[in-house]
Amino acid sequence: TSAYNIAVIPGDGIGKEIMPHVQAVLEKATQGLVHFNYETFDLGAERYLRDGSTLPDDELERIKTKDAILLGAVGDPRIKAGIIERGLLLKLRFALDQYINLRPSKLYDGVKSPLANPGNIDFVVVREGTEGLYVGAGGAIRRGTPHEVATEVSINTAFGVERVVRYAFALAMKRRKHVTLVHKKNVLTNAGDMWQRIVDAVAKEFPEVTTDYQHVDAATIFIVTDPSRFDVILTDNLFGDILTDEAGAVVGGVGYSASANINASNEYPSMFEPIHGSAPDIAGKGIANPTAAILSTALMLRHLGIDAPADRIEVAVEADIKESATAQRFTAEVGADILARL
Amino acid sequence: TSAYNIAVIPGDGIGKEIMPHVQAVLEKATQGLVHFNYETFDLGAERYLRDGSTLPDDELERIKTKDAILLGAVGDPRIKAGIIERGLLLKLRFALDQYINLRPSKLYDGVKSPLANPGNIDFVVVREGTEGLYVGAGGAIRRGTPHEVATEVSINTAFGVERVVRYAFALAMKRRKHVTLVHKKNVLTNAGDMWQRIVDAVAKEFPEVTTDYQHVDAATIFIVTDPSRFDVILTDNLFGDILTDEAGAVVGGVGYSASANINASNEYPSMFEPIHGSAPDIAGKGIANPTAAILSTALMLRHLGIDAPADRIEVAVEADIKESATAQRFTAEVGADILARL
Ligand SMILES: CC(C)[C@H](C(=O)O)[C@@H](O)C(=O)O
Ligand SMILES: CC(C)[C@H](C(=O)O)[C@@H](O)C(=O)O
Repeated sequence: TSAYNIAVIPGDGIGKEIMPHVQAVLEKATQGLVHFNYETFDLGAERYLRDGSTLPDDELERIKTKDAILLGAVGDPRIKAGIIERGLLLKLRFALDQYINLRPSKLYDGVKSPLANPGNIDFVVVREGTEGLYVGAGGAIRRGTPHEVATEVSINTAFGVERVVRYAFALAMKRRKHVTLVHKKNVLTNAGDMWQRIVDAVAKEFPEVTTDYQHVDAATIFIVTDPSRFDVILTDNLFGDILTDEAGAVVGGVGYSASANINASNEYPSMFEPIHGSAPDIAGKGIANPTAAILSTALMLRHLGIDAPADRIEVAVEADIKESATAQRFTAEVGADILARL
Repeated sequence: TSAYNIAVIPGDGIGKEIMPHVQAVLEKATQGLVHFNYETFDLGAERYLRDGSTLPDDELERIKTKDAILLGAVGDPRIKAGIIERGLLLKLRFALDQYINLRPSKLYDGVKSPLANPGNIDFVVVREGTEGLYVGAGGAIRRGTPHEVATEVSINTAFGVERVVRYAFALAMKRRKHVTLVHKKNVLTNAGDMWQRIVDAVAKEFPEVTTDYQHVDAATIFIVTDPSRFDVILTDNLFGDILTDEAGAVVGGVGYSASANINASNEYPSMFEPIHGSAPDIAGKGIANPTAAILSTALMLRHLGIDAPADRIEVAVEADIKESATAQRFTAEVGADILARL
């Protein structure tokens, strides 16, 4: 049996509560097939409040040696917005060059969508993960005065865009062969024009894949009125952040939405996390749904090329959802039910 | 009877088709009370294709002398994205310093929302209109090469933020006294921090108004799962663009969503337009819904202090919607029905 080294970052709030269930499922699904060595990293709000560090260099270096990362969730209302996000989560995505942020949206059988007629929702958002408004370029002058000016700079490169565009087209080939570019090229003319030109160029290499384009504002409409039209949505970092939360809502809640932050060139470990956050409002009550995080481990297994256990996890999760999604359950109950079905 | 000078810009696509009905309603609602002198401006795609101009200086100067502007819609698929938008629509918003982009979202009686349980949706988005990513700062180097870099710069000032924040709080006082700031301050830390600080400072002057904050991604979830929680949403230019289209979808379509671009200091005319676009897919078929544009004239009347006809228009529109919103009707039928109800 081959062995993999996994960095586990439970993080904050419900991240901590779901992680044991996630690991239990992963263990059972892969039993006898592969072996995982876990190293748990004490990173997140508690650590920051204790010693002021978000991601020390030596820990980042140790994480870099792993085969993959499992992350629970980060964020804590006691800490100023941005410190943990920029200092830990985004630092990992950027330092590990996780340029593909992959977020499937699927309405599972048994889940109640808030839409009256959801139809058959099954699309994937391919969100760029290392550029755009997330680069942290920007600043402020005359802070706190009536003359303050604050800027945020979106930086986009042909290098960064082309690699995610190629990934989206290759993914579409394995799916329903349709790519929708989402941007706001009628206003963000510099970045939007570059995205569109690169999509047009790459599309020529994938003659079987059809493409279309939507402004981000229009895309938010279609996610509500006609989500089944989408197969692969290709978009930038910020628009992807927004659309995947909206998509999570229409498929019955972000509690079912997994995500993968992939370094597709495999120079660095990729990271797997639910798209939901640390949910301070329900943390500590034992009621967080571990499903999204469990589905994220299936994405991890596929990334590592371990497909059979990934299938098993997905089948078990779908069966659990089908039977019990509408019931109000404790984290431990959901975890136990999925475990039992493996 | 007092007289007002109105610039009319029908624009492109369905904008041209709905404008006659809009003006007919406006005329009838204000008959004998006020007089409107209209000057129609030939601006938009046709004009651009004919002579390459989007908004010549002398026409802008003439528009500046008006009391208000009625705009249909702009945008045409034959023209590269951004040319008409930046050269005409955004040029007007910026040149006329229309810093309040006001967009009510209301689920009217009789309209079918795509949500299974929409509840009582009645909120207003106060979108900043002259800053953020819309300023057109940004550029590209090595365009068309593998080394291209394209930037977009969001510029935000305390001056610009404070005036829209004050407007939102004053508006909340006339409503249910709740303001939700929407931003992405955990990532856009410079701009987000400034917005939050200014909201906190202004909130002290409005002790009756409660406030909360949501990240833009979370806000897109609540617009789908719990839209009745919102009263006044206060946000920046891009987030406001996105949220108001999503909000338009949940209230049954952008065909019911009016908007006002207001220069609240009255140095320049304000502009009233539906939030929908030129809809090239249905243009020329006579089936565009003029309701949003008609409701926009009610916003214009209120802005000009002519309240009674604004009430009459809203009552007529609500009655028309209640009776016929689910029917498939021609533009002219909707126009005639609303006219008949005045
Ligand atoms: C926590 C935050 C920085 C993050 C993001 O904006 O990417 C989250 O919303 C997500 O989507 O993973
Ligand atoms: C046409 C476009 C420039 C415009 C915007 O982005 O503001 C439109 O989407 C709107 O919301 O009025």
